[in-house]
Amino acid sequence: MQRQIPEGFELAGVHCGIKPDASRLDLTLIRCQRPAVGVGVYTQNLFHAAPVALDRQRTPSDRIAAVVINSGNANACTGPRGMSDAEEMARLAADACGCQPDQVLVMSTGIIGRYLPLERIAAGVQAAAAELSREPRAIEAAARGMMTTDKGPKIASRTIELDDGPVQLLGLAKGAAMIGPRMATMLAVFLCDANLNASDAQATLEGAVNDSFNCISVEGHMSTNDTVLLLASGARGGAPLAGPQLSAVQIGVRELAIELARMIPDDGEGSTHLIEIEVSGCRNRDEAFQIARSVASSALVKTAIAGGDPNWGRIVSAAGYAGVAFDPQHVELFVNGIALFRKGSPLPFDERAVSRAISGQRDTLIQLGFGEGDAVVRFWTSDLTVDYVRFNADYST
Amino acid sequence: MQRQIPEGFELAGVHCGIKPDASRLDLTLIRCQRPAVGVGVYTQNLFHAAPVALDRQRTPSDRIAAVVINSGNANACTGPRGMSDAEEMARLAADACGCQPDQVLVMSTGIIGRYLPLERIAAGVQAAAAELSREPRAIEAAARGMMTTDKGPKIASRTIELDDGPVQLLGLAKGAAMIGPRMATMLAVFLCDANLNASDAQATLEGAVNDSFNCISVEGHMSTNDTVLLLASGARGGAPLAGPQLSAVQIGVRELAIELARMIPDDGEGSTHLIEIEVSGCRNRDEAFQIARSVASSALVKTAIAGGDPNWGRIVSAAGYAGVAFDPQHVELFVNGIALFRKGSPLPFDERAVSRAISGQRDTLIQLGFGEGDAVVRFWTSDLTVDYVRFNADYST
Repeated sequence: MQRQIPEGFELAGVHCGIKPDASRLDLTLIRCQRPAVGVGVYTQNLFHAAPVALDRQRTPSDRIAAVVINSGNANACTGPRGMSDAEEMARLAADACGCQPDQVLVMSTGIIGRYLPLERIAAGVQAAAAELSREPRAIEAAARGMMTTDKGPKIASRTIELDDGPVQLLGLAKGAAMIGPRMATMLAVFLCDANLNASDAQATLEGAVNDSFNCISVEGHMSTNDTVLLLASGARGGAPLAGPQLSAVQIGVRELAIELARMIPDDGEGSTHLIEIEVSGCRNRDEAFQIARSVASSALVKTAIAGGDPNWGRIVSAAGYAGVAFDPQHVELFVNGIALFRKGSPLPFDERAVSRAISGQRDTLIQLGFGEGDAVVRFWTSDLTVDYVRFNADYST
Repeated sequence: MQRQIPEGFELAGVHCGIKPDASRLDLTLIRCQRPAVGVGVYTQNLFHAAPVALDRQRTPSDRIAAVVINSGNANACTGPRGMSDAEEMARLAADACGCQPDQVLVMSTGIIGRYLPLERIAAGVQAAAAELSREPRAIEAAARGMMTTDKGPKIASRTIELDDGPVQLLGLAKGAAMIGPRMATMLAVFLCDANLNASDAQATLEGAVNDSFNCISVEGHMSTNDTVLLLASGARGGAPLAGPQLSAVQIGVRELAIELARMIPDDGEGSTHLIEIEVSGCRNRDEAFQIARSVASSALVKTAIAGGDPNWGRIVSAAGYAGVAFDPQHVELFVNGIALFRKGSPLPFDERAVSRAISGQRDTLIQLGFGEGDAVVRFWTSDLTVDYVRFNADYST
């Protein structure tokens, strides 16, 4: 089934010369046909980029009219000039979309520490405004305009059936490295035609991000530019959603966010495995999260999975330095469903069979149980391969 | 000048078949000719290995008679059997050295989750006891018996001139991966012929480890087996050191520890650069340490240095998520003495010159200034290369 753009939005993606390769899109424009509720969650990095600072000032809002996104340049660590460049980028989009500058949100991604090429962005905004469309093909163009080292566009959609008719959800994301948790990771934007008030929209987005973009990593490096936005046009009509209808949309946004978030480590630079780490039996979610993140951050775990190596000591030892108190005698570990460790002692297992179970498929499931409570967290990361290192040893130069 | 073994100790290193390659030593024995003061600092990993549990019970002590060390098997995550195996290893060494089992300290390093081959260790302890020697050549054999993936033995020595004659210090260490901070990293043992009481020895060792082994990383994975021991034989005679004499020995142990600790990331698996990160101008040491560790842990920083890539945005952004509050407008960054970033804005610089400055030498110096106080921390890490990944994708199998 072809994806639809939720009611109330027009999209476009163009090439304007921020990236040297003319076949790669580098500017995305989203226009709201009527003022939309717009909320965001942002990186916790102290060196947040200028567009993050700008969007933080402008959200939550009930009058967002456009979002302009460029790739190829992060406009981060660029000082006062970077801030005025982000404001100018918003002004250019406002002129093209017929709204006020403070109704525009901005996202940037790419190399840190270079000033934006504003003339190219001005031309790109003009070209994108001329291409704005509600045709389904505009979805992919908009997703491609956000990409940096992504192998392909990251798009997900849902239709949620409410009593009074369907709600359309569409999510676009980018990201393949500089992916670390404890924040809204990388760029993503959710469009929704439901009527949500701003505080419900904010709670919906924060809840979704906590279980999705905050539960992924590639190498654990928190970006300067991470931004996730949710825009709700209200174009489907009706009063602001509440009660079970609001809950249904919240669950839908959460599922969509998890679907998109998983795509990021799955597309992690050089990755050959998507690793899902399920930590269960903890006393609370925070502890389960800390353990999952510690395992996901270990280069030794990630290289072992890349090599199909059932070196489970690396997994349990990474749990052991997560900063969470637990009794090692209660811990059990399964890799792809095979029990390797239980009650503090190794179990006999067929190393070759486990190695084949890892090497033979793209997804690896690591399950750690702690037997101390009922909190569960799922976390996704990529494996670590020679291609990740090759790629990142030569990115800017 | 040839290194000397401090008075009061005999050393040996042998091959006993824990490692398959007969040319690689895998068992080290240190005998104290008279009972020595022995103190230790240990991994904070909850999955600490059996020998760590044993040594924790037995230190600090003023009657240590031997240390027995094996490589090729960590005796970690091995449950109750692992604990009785470590006790048996101590008993074997006690029999060979003519002391009580509880006067023996044990260290193990190698693969996690396999039971010790006790028959081989018994034969190795016998062979090592027969080779115990105060000849300088025994130093290298003892250092080689501790090695796993190290390219060579890690040895450092100092002579400290006190008013009443010299103090001899000797340090042996091993480690090239599973190196993460906030603990005593990996195996090291310091021998000293001064007379130290146990509490002064403990304070001396903890102070030295804080500025050395706790300030290094390779990939940041905290091991199950990290142990650093200091043995003081008192063989040079005199009362326990105090005052300026004690301080002189403490400074010497600290310098020796830093010299040995730097060798570990310099020998980091696959590494082509030793990266020194100097964080200054912080309000206190803890904050400087957190920032230094965050930069040292970033795979994006480490791959950039491997590639000679002056991608400084990765460095400042890693400082930005260290969890320390600072004003980005006061931050400055130098790489190999070249200023790249100041007061929140990029500085113009010659990218090729900086790239050559990184690629042309083994040491890379990253200096971050925060302008908020006078605390300084130095931290050392290796770069991240394709060879690290290749090696670790196929370690156990």
